[in-house]
Amino acid sequence: MPVYKAPQRDMQFVLHEMLEVEENYQQFPKYADQFSRDLINQYLEAAADFCENEIAPINQSGDHEGCHFEHGKVTTPKGFKEAYQKYVELGFTSLTADPVYGGQGMPTLLRIAISEMLCASNWSWAMYQGLSHGAMRTLEHHGTEQQKQTFLTKLIAGIWTGTMCLTESHAGSDLGLIRTKAESQADGSYAITGEKIFISAGEHDLAENIVHIVLARLPNAPSGTKGISLFIVPKFNVDESGNIQDRNQVVCSAIEHKMGIHGNATCVMNFDAAKGYLIGPENRGLNCMFTFMNTARIGTAVQGLAASEIAFQGALGYAKERLAMRALTGAKQPTQNADPIIVHPAVRSMLMTQKAFAEGGRALAYFLAQHADIIESSSDEAQKKLSDELLAFLTPIAKAFLTESGNESAKHGVQIFGGHGFIVEHGMEQIVRDARISTLYEGTTEIQSLDLLARKVLKSEGKLLKNMTDLIDQFVEENQSNSSLKTYLDQLSKLKNEWLEITKHIAVKAQHNPEEIGAASVDYLYYSSYIVFAYLWARMAKVAQQKLDQGTTEQKFYAAKLKTAQFFYDKLLNRTQQHAASIKTGAESVMALDAEDFAF
Amino acid sequence: MPVYKAPQRDMQFVLHEMLEVEENYQQFPKYADQFSRDLINQYLEAAADFCENEIAPINQSGDHEGCHFEHGKVTTPKGFKEAYQKYVELGFTSLTADPVYGGQGMPTLLRIAISEMLCASNWSWAMYQGLSHGAMRTLEHHGTEQQKQTFLTKLIAGIWTGTMCLTESHAGSDLGLIRTKAESQADGSYAITGEKIFISAGEHDLAENIVHIVLARLPNAPSGTKGISLFIVPKFNVDESGNIQDRNQVVCSAIEHKMGIHGNATCVMNFDAAKGYLIGPENRGLNCMFTFMNTARIGTAVQGLAASEIAFQGALGYAKERLAMRALTGAKQPTQNADPIIVHPAVRSMLMTQKAFAEGGRALAYFLAQHADIIESSSDEAQKKLSDELLAFLTPIAKAFLTESGNESAKHGVQIFGGHGFIVEHGMEQIVRDARISTLYEGTTEIQSLDLLARKVLKSEGKLLKNMTDLIDQFVEENQSNSSLKTYLDQLSKLKNEWLEITKHIAVKAQHNPEEIGAASVDYLYYSSYIVFAYLWARMAKVAQQKLDQGTTEQKFYAAKLKTAQFFYDKLLNRTQQHAASIKTGAESVMALDAEDFAF
Repeated sequence: MPVYKAPQRDMQFVLHEMLEVEENYQQFPKYADQFSRDLINQYLEAAADFCENEIAPINQSGDHEGCHFEHGKVTTPKGFKEAYQKYVELGFTSLTADPVYGGQGMPTLLRIAISEMLCASNWSWAMYQGLSHGAMRTLEHHGTEQQKQTFLTKLIAGIWTGTMCLTESHAGSDLGLIRTKAESQADGSYAITGEKIFISAGEHDLAENIVHIVLARLPNAPSGTKGISLFIVPKFNVDESGNIQDRNQVVCSAIEHKMGIHGNATCVMNFDAAKGYLIGPENRGLNCMFTFMNTARIGTAVQGLAASEIAFQGALGYAKERLAMRALTGAKQPTQNADPIIVHPAVRSMLMTQKAFAEGGRALAYFLAQHADIIESSSDEAQKKLSDELLAFLTPIAKAFLTESGNESAKHGVQIFGGHGFIVEHGMEQIVRDARISTLYEGTTEIQSLDLLARKVLKSEGKLLKNMTDLIDQFVEENQSNSSLKTYLDQLSKLKNEWLEITKHIAVKAQHNPEEIGAASVDYLYYSSYIVFAYLWARMAKVAQQKLDQGTTEQKFYAAKLKTAQFFYDKLLNRTQQHAASIKTGAESVMALDAEDFAF
Repeated sequence: MPVYKAPQRDMQFVLHEMLEVEENYQQFPKYADQFSRDLINQYLEAAADFCENEIAPINQSGDHEGCHFEHGKVTTPKGFKEAYQKYVELGFTSLTADPVYGGQGMPTLLRIAISEMLCASNWSWAMYQGLSHGAMRTLEHHGTEQQKQTFLTKLIAGIWTGTMCLTESHAGSDLGLIRTKAESQADGSYAITGEKIFISAGEHDLAENIVHIVLARLPNAPSGTKGISLFIVPKFNVDESGNIQDRNQVVCSAIEHKMGIHGNATCVMNFDAAKGYLIGPENRGLNCMFTFMNTARIGTAVQGLAASEIAFQGALGYAKERLAMRALTGAKQPTQNADPIIVHPAVRSMLMTQKAFAEGGRALAYFLAQHADIIESSSDEAQKKLSDELLAFLTPIAKAFLTESGNESAKHGVQIFGGHGFIVEHGMEQIVRDARISTLYEGTTEIQSLDLLARKVLKSEGKLLKNMTDLIDQFVEENQSNSSLKTYLDQLSKLKNEWLEITKHIAVKAQHNPEEIGAASVDYLYYSSYIVFAYLWARMAKVAQQKLDQGTTEQKFYAAKLKTAQFFYDKLLNRTQQHAASIKTGAESVMALDAEDFAF
C-alpha cells in the first residue's frame, strides 16, 4: 500500500515561486493585511499532517469495508466518522467560507491545494467534505439571508453536510430531461417528488443533518434546461433557528455497488413530497448550478492530479526496491543479484510521465484556482474579466485532461508493480478503480470536449482561445533573450501557431457540417491540453533555471524540475501530432457507418 | 450486463475469406482429407452455443462470488464446475491434441478462434481450461512416452487440469532469480521444495487431479536462466496406469485478492519435498518453456481481442438505446425527447475504435495462429522457416498490443455508459478489471517491447523485420492496379519505409548507448503494431471490396468492413507519428534524473 507523503515542497514551488501568491494576493483588498507565505505554509502543514496521519491510514481499509446500507441508513467505514470529527475540529470546513457566516475567508487556491492532499490520501473520505463545499457555494451565491442563516452556517461549521442532487436514471449528461417535480405549498415551501441517482454522500453517519441541493421542475415549467429550478431539501426539517425537527420525506433507498470509491456512499434518493425551499429564481436552477459547477470541475481536476501523485509515489517506492534484471549498460548494483527496476528505461518513462502529469497538473489546477480568486477578490474589473474568460476556457481542459492523465498515471502505477499491481494488498489497483469515476462524473471527457470546442472556442469566435495564446506570446516575448529556454519557446511558438490554424480549420469545416465539431472535439481537447501543459512547464522551467542561476541550496530540486520539463517536451508534447492529424481527417469516417450496421 | 453474442460471421470472414483456411490447410498432409469450411463452422457453432448459453451467464455471478478458500481447498463460483463438465463432454479439451493420446488433432487456429469466444464470454472460467493447454503442449513436446501415457492422456481427456508454476514472489519478469529446489531421489524422481505465487488454477474443484509444470533449480545448477529445470508435480501421486494414489506434498496456502478475474483462483503454492518428474534435459527448463510460451502469448493476445469485442458489444447496445441530447445536425428521433447517443461523434469514435481493435485484433491473432499451424503441419521447410520467423517477430506485438488495445476498448466501454459504466451491475467495469491482468502476465508490455526490439529485430540485424516489410511490399505490388486500395497502399508504403528508417536510426544510436534500445522499445512496439494492423486492415479491405465488386447479398457487411478500415487509417494509424517522434528524441530525458532525485 503506497504511503502518502504530501508533496509540500512542490506545492510551495507552484504557490510561491511560480504563482507568487503572497505578492499577488496582497493586492486584493480582502487579503491586504492578513496574507503571507508563512500563513499558507502553516495551513499546508496542518492539512498534510491530517492527511498523512488521519485519513491515509483508513484509505485501504475503507475500500475493503465499503459503506453499509440497512433500512435507509448508511454506515461509513471504520474511522471515517472520527476523522470527519477531527477535520471539523481543525476548522477545515470553514476555510474559504464567508466570515459573516462563520467562515475564514481564505482563498480558493488554498482550498484546492489542501483538497489535492485530501484526495490523494483518501478519495472516498474527501468526497464527503467536498460535496458540502458545492452546497455552500450555491447557498452563498443564491440563497436568501434566512437560508444562509439557517443552512449555510451549519454547513460552514461542518455539523451538517451537503449534496448536489442532479442526475436521474435517464438524465445524466442531458439534465434537460429531468422529471423530479416541485409543487408550491401554502406555506411558501415546495413539495419535491422524484428519484435522484448517483448522489454522493446522499446519506451517511458523519453529521447530524444533510442539506440536499436539488434540481426539479415546477408545474408548467418550459421543457428542457430552461424549466429547471433549484431547491434546498434538508434530511431533517429544521426550525428557523436551525434546530432539528422531524424527518423530511427524503430517503436513501439504496447505495450503488461500484468499481471504486467504495468508502463513499453513492445513493439513490427518493423524494416523496419532501419539503423544499426555492433557491434563486424559478426556472433558473441550471444557471445557479453553473456558478458552482466551474469550481466543482476544478475540484474534480484536482482528484485527477491527486491520482497521478499517489500513483507516482507508490510506483516510485517499488521501482527503487524491486530487483529484476540488469541495466542495459551493465550492473548498477553488482552486489545484489539484479538491479532495481528504476534503472530500466521503460520503467523510468512511466515514472517520469506520472511525475510530469502530477506536477504539471498541480500547476494547472492552482493556476486556475488563482484565476477563480481574482474573479472573487480583485478590484480590477479588466483583470476579473480576463480571469473569468480564462477560467471558462481552461476549466474543461483541466477537468478532462487532469482526470484522463490521472487515469493514465494510475495505469502506469499498476504496470510498474507488474503482476503485484493487480493484487489488492499493494493498493495500486485501488487507485485505478477510484480514479476511474473522475472522467465520468461532473461531465464526461466527451462533454468537456464539446464544451471547450463548441461553447468556449467557436461560440466566442476564438476570443477565449486568443486570451490563452496571448499569454503564450507574452511569455515567449518576455523570455526571448533567455537562451536556456530557447528549445521550449521555439516549440511553444510553433504549436501556438498550429493551434490557431487548426481551430480555424475546424471552424471553416463546421460551417458546412456541424458534425465536424463533435468529431474533432476530443482530439482538440487533448491537443489543447498538451499545449497548456507546455506553457506551464516552460514557466516552471524558467523559475527553476533562475534559481539555479542565482545559486541555491536546493540545487537537486530545481535540476529535477528542469529535467522533468525536458521529459515533458521530449516525450509527451509530441502527442499533439497524433491529435492534429486525427482532427485533419475530419468527420467522414466517424459518421460513415449506419447505427444498424455497427453490429456486424 | 452485456449479452455476449459470438461474432461468428466476422470470425468466418477472417478464417475463410482472408486466411482461406480450407484451401491452405488441405495442402498440409495431416489435413489433406479431413478439413473443410463446414467442419470449422460446425466447431465454431458448437463453441458459440456453449459460450453464449453456458459460461456467459455465470460470468458476472462468478465475479461477484469469487473463489472460496478454506484449509487448502478452493471452491470455484457456482456453475463453474458444471460448465467444465459440459465442456469436457463436448470434447473441447482434446481439440488440438495428438490423436495418439486421445486428441482430435485439429489446428491451433481453430483453438484460438474458440478461445476468443471463451475469453469474451467468461475470462475467469476460460483460464481453467487455458492453463491445461500449456501443460499439454509442454508434455507433448518434451515429455517421455511414459509421462505422456500417464499425464498427457488425462489432460487431453479433461479429467485432470494443468498449471504452469513459474513465478516466485521475488522473481517474475526475471526468472533467472528463482530459488525453488529440486533434489534427485533414489527412485528417479525429484523432491521439489519452494514457494510459487500467481499460479492460476493452482487449486480448484473442477477436476480430480492437477498436473503442475514447475520450474526449479537442481543442486549446483549454474546461476541464472541456464540453471533451471522443468518438472511435473501432480497434486495427487499416481501409479503408472494413472490411478490416483496419495496426496503429494504440494498445497495451496492462499489465494490472492485481485482487481479482477475473481472467478479464477490465483494461488500461492507450497512445495514441501513434493514428488516431481524431470521433463526434458537438466538445466534446459526455460528452453522447454519457451516452446510453449509463444502459443501462450497468442492465447493472452486473444484475451485482449476478446476484451475489445465484449466491451464493444456492451457499449454498442447501450449507445443505441440511451437517449441524451440532440445530434449536432438536428433531431434524429424527433418523436423521442432526445436522440440515442450513438448519433454523437465522440461516442461513435469510441465505438469505431473498439470495432477496429476487435476486428483487427482477430485478424492478427488468427494470422499468427495460421503460422503456428504451418510450423507444426507444413511439409515445406522454407515455408516453415518463414512462419517461424514471422511468429517470433509478431508474437510480442500481438501479446502487448492486443492486450493494451483491449484495455483501451474496455475503458471506452465504461466511458460510453457514463456514470452507469462505474456501476457493477452493468458489467462494463468488470471488463476493465478482468482485462487489466493481460498487460501484466505472460510478460508485461515492457518485456514484450524489449523482446521485439532487442531480441527479435536488432539481434537478427533486421531480418525478422524484413520478413514483415517484404509481406507489405508484396501486398502493395500485387494490388498496384487496384485503385480502390490506393489510399491504403500509399500510406502503407510510406510507413513501411519510415519503419525501416526508424529501426536503422535506433540501431545506430544503440551502438553508442544501449539505453537507447530500452528508451525506444515501448514506442517502437506501438509504432510497429499500428503498421501491422494497417497491413491486415488493407488485406481485409481488399477482400471486402472484391466481394462488393463481385456482387453479394451481404452488401452491408462488406461495406461496414470497408468503413472500419477507413476509420482505422484516418483515426488510429496516425498514432504512429507520436511514437516516431518520441523515438527520435532518444534516451536522454528518460535517463537524466538520478533515482534518488525522483522523489522531489
